[in-house]
Amino acid sequence: MKDVNVGICGLGTVGGGTFNVLTRNAALIAGRAGCNIRIARVASRRNRDDLELGDIPFSTDIFDVVQDPDVDVVVELIGGYDTAKELVMSAIRHGKHVVTANKALIAVHGNEIFDAAEKAGVVVAYEAGVAGGIPVIKAVREGLAANRIDTVAGIINGTGNFILTEMRAGREFSEVLKEAQDLGYAEADPTFDVEGIDAAHKLTILASSGIGVPLQFEKAYTEGIAGVTPYDIAHAEQLGYRVKHLGIARRREEGIELRVHPTLVPKAHLIAQVDGVLNAVMVDGDAVGQTMYYGPGAGDEATASAVIADIVDVARAVATASDQRVPYLGFRPEAMEDLPVLSMEDIQSAYYLRIQALDRPGVLAKIASILSEHGINIESIMQKESEFKDGRIPVIILTHTVQERQMNLAIADMESLGDIDGKVIRIRAENFN
Amino acid sequence: MKDVNVGICGLGTVGGGTFNVLTRNAALIAGRAGCNIRIARVASRRNRDDLELGDIPFSTDIFDVVQDPDVDVVVELIGGYDTAKELVMSAIRHGKHVVTANKALIAVHGNEIFDAAEKAGVVVAYEAGVAGGIPVIKAVREGLAANRIDTVAGIINGTGNFILTEMRAGREFSEVLKEAQDLGYAEADPTFDVEGIDAAHKLTILASSGIGVPLQFEKAYTEGIAGVTPYDIAHAEQLGYRVKHLGIARRREEGIELRVHPTLVPKAHLIAQVDGVLNAVMVDGDAVGQTMYYGPGAGDEATASAVIADIVDVARAVATASDQRVPYLGFRPEAMEDLPVLSMEDIQSAYYLRIQALDRPGVLAKIASILSEHGINIESIMQKESEFKDGRIPVIILTHTVQERQMNLAIADMESLGDIDGKVIRIRAENFN
Repeated sequence: MKDVNVGICGLGTVGGGTFNVLTRNAALIAGRAGCNIRIARVASRRNRDDLELGDIPFSTDIFDVVQDPDVDVVVELIGGYDTAKELVMSAIRHGKHVVTANKALIAVHGNEIFDAAEKAGVVVAYEAGVAGGIPVIKAVREGLAANRIDTVAGIINGTGNFILTEMRAGREFSEVLKEAQDLGYAEADPTFDVEGIDAAHKLTILASSGIGVPLQFEKAYTEGIAGVTPYDIAHAEQLGYRVKHLGIARRREEGIELRVHPTLVPKAHLIAQVDGVLNAVMVDGDAVGQTMYYGPGAGDEATASAVIADIVDVARAVATASDQRVPYLGFRPEAMEDLPVLSMEDIQSAYYLRIQALDRPGVLAKIASILSEHGINIESIMQKESEFKDGRIPVIILTHTVQERQMNLAIADMESLGDIDGKVIRIRAENFN
Repeated sequence: MKDVNVGICGLGTVGGGTFNVLTRNAALIAGRAGCNIRIARVASRRNRDDLELGDIPFSTDIFDVVQDPDVDVVVELIGGYDTAKELVMSAIRHGKHVVTANKALIAVHGNEIFDAAEKAGVVVAYEAGVAGGIPVIKAVREGLAANRIDTVAGIINGTGNFILTEMRAGREFSEVLKEAQDLGYAEADPTFDVEGIDAAHKLTILASSGIGVPLQFEKAYTEGIAGVTPYDIAHAEQLGYRVKHLGIARRREEGIELRVHPTLVPKAHLIAQVDGVLNAVMVDGDAVGQTMYYGPGAGDEATASAVIADIVDVARAVATASDQRVPYLGFRPEAMEDLPVLSMEDIQSAYYLRIQALDRPGVLAKIASILSEHGINIESIMQKESEFKDGRIPVIILTHTVQERQMNLAIADMESLGDIDGKVIRIRAENFN
């Protein structure tokens, strides 16, 4: 198996996350990529004590990575414009593929960078630059390749979405911003986030790769959320709308709309339900209709997930035969795990139970005691009035997670009580948190 | 530019959609794929008068497609098990790549098919088999390649989700099923949909390609929705839960949970908000955290979108250099459109307006008349009590979509009225429908 060698430039949040995930999931990633992804060199102004570099060469000069003949893929995670651009252009000149999480760089200098990369015959990939871990660049460039994409719209700045979410409780912008800074969601200088500049960088990239127009960040309209008041948010709610800070790109006959601003969206629309620091991108295509992609838009390992997806793409393209690029089931056959499918007795779930109890003293106590005997904890319980005046009282129970085997035993015990009418109704429940 | 030649087998809903989208968007798709996707042959038991085949060879025998030396990619859209399997295996033996929308075929015979394809060195792609137009197979096999995926769960049968959505209004299963059949959402024999067999096919594929275990459809647990009552749905709602028909695959240390059944999910979770015939798949990865993919799970062109994405993947892999597989911005540079970015005066939007009107007779009439003069229609209007007892009455207006230029003029006119205090507050609004 051929190795693909990566050089990581920058050991900040995303650089550290990328190092950790590549290391922790090395075997799994190799099974997916069809080759080993080897960290050949790491460079950063400052080293980090918490990363176990082992014998991986470390430089304080990021340009060492570009010079290293061992490195196939330069991973640019230093951020900013000037040095990052110099690094990427130098990597391209050296014939290296580039993976970056730098949305500002791509939005502002992308046309020039891609032009150079095209001539040099190297890949420049930037999934991590837009919406963090959500593979939305892959969706628009590949998954929706059949479509004329007319609209791309999204919540693509988690800080702004956190602030607007909290403001629904009637809190002022400045107060929530302060909290976001304390929580580490917002920078000391929050301009990029709250003024929509960061969102405009991402929107510029989404519009180009979805709709197929050149990158033109300088023409994007940007309006921040500092002027949004809880008063207007409350009125919008009364009208059935939620205020979100959206980036919107829309193809019209005469041209492209490219704009970031606070926007009312109907509460019933899924994108209105995306709260807190999470991101979501909606894409409308002429064939597919409306699709949406949701997940963490920032964070060390979430962003690393996208960085590594790009590395795996490069590895699959350069190290495997074209007809074997992506393994049929995502993993090379020898990397599949032959895990057994568990019987239903062995699954774990929470449960909704409806028990038709006869109206006799002590029934509830008997039910509770059966559940307890089988190690089943009750999350909530509702005893309803009998609707049918037939002496049967519906008892509704939501349990914590338990093995289904225990639940089957408990239900059998309950059904054998003389105080229960008919079968116990059981629906499984999941919290997904 | 090299052509990639496809042969379409089956002209049902998805076959017709694939033909139409490939034809309508041919130039756009070529710009994305880096080569022309040419329909070299079409085969179907019955031809369709509504499709403009022109001089494309048509056969009533689908096996003609496999025999045709011109065909590079066999697109299997006939459905079912036996003939479809024979067709796909024959295509593989002839060294053709295969694209299919047939979830049943892949879930039941996939291990055997992939084994043969691996030996023959051909691609077998099946994005359209799972969640229709949503590129979720691409997400798990490529976009999340860095992750150990622990949970995949989804609403992957639109018919079932439509029925459960309608049952929230207190309607019985059998009544809504009848309506779904009348609307064409459910088959005359609804077993595959309402018993969860269709969902189990898709879940089997998602579990394998996400978690990396062999396909084992026969071990999936399947429980339908016929036993769900509006009575239990109402109780679940009271507890803060919604009942969804979910497919759930979960990696545990001892094995894999693989199950389809009615499930309570917290109303606050995004997946609980997915209503009607729409699909959504949630994927939890150890690096990325929780992501979700949403959109149409069926339909002629939505499914065609996924079929063609797979065709484009094959075309990019076999017809372009590995370092040029996906163009930087999704389209080959010469296929980019140099559409101008519109000025904000030229964009179109709906608007939320808050006007601080002075408490004088006729103010509302003046505002309404200004909007009307500029061709702006009112969607809804709220006149609030003055909160400050200062003689100012907030008037809240939601407008229909209009050009921003008109809105700017209207706002200027309103602000020059003597009856308005301060600036008009304006927030843009979008319905995204």
